[in-house]
Amino acid sequence: MREWKWSPAEKAVARRAFDMALNGELEAILRETKERAARIRGTSELWGLERWLGERRREIDQKYDYRYSVLPTVFARLVGERRLSIDDLKGLEPEKLAAIRLWTEH
Amino acid sequence: MREWKWSPAEKAVARRAFDMALNGELEAILRETKERAARIRGTSELWGLERWLGERRREIDQKYDYRYSVLPTVFARLVGERRLSIDDLKGLEPEKLAAIRLWTEH
Repeated sequence: MREWKWSPAEKAVARRAFDMALNGELEAILRETKERAARIRGTSELWGLERWLGERRREIDQKYDYRYSVLPTVFARLVGERRLSIDDLKGLEPEKLAAIRLWTEH
Repeated sequence: MREWKWSPAEKAVARRAFDMALNGELEAILRETKERAARIRGTSELWGLERWLGERRREIDQKYDYRYSVLPTVFARLVGERRLSIDDLKGLEPEKLAAIRLWTEH
């Protein structure tokens, strides 16, 4: 894990992009939870929702890791998942953007 | 843990009462899940639902234990929680009903 240096301006860009992706994802989970709950007819769907929500919480906890040492990897994943675009990360130094592009899986 | 003897007729009574209580409780959880989900406005309520549902699942798993060796204790708890009445258990032998009454907490 390498030591990235983050200027105050970069930290601001990173925070905004991170929060945007996280809030978007939480909003989507919230919406889908309401839809799934409204559709529940029986016990297997009830526990299906319970399992699904637990998986979502663990995924969010694991994915949204705001340590500066791992943040470029986090952003690469979010770009790969189309939760962020490279444009949302404008303002990060070229080296970080290059790393994020490199690590992004399409 | 004592060895209870269960006649086929008693097993039928027990099964019916057990399923009635379980289905009633699942129905209530299902209803409350829909209500809670519909009321969610933000992330803390979303994860609040996730936690609550997990607790309900574990509680149901733990409470509804259909081993004949523990069934009178299970029924005593369900009577104490007003999920069953002693009348629902009519057909069990007097010794079991007496034990269930004795163990019921009001």
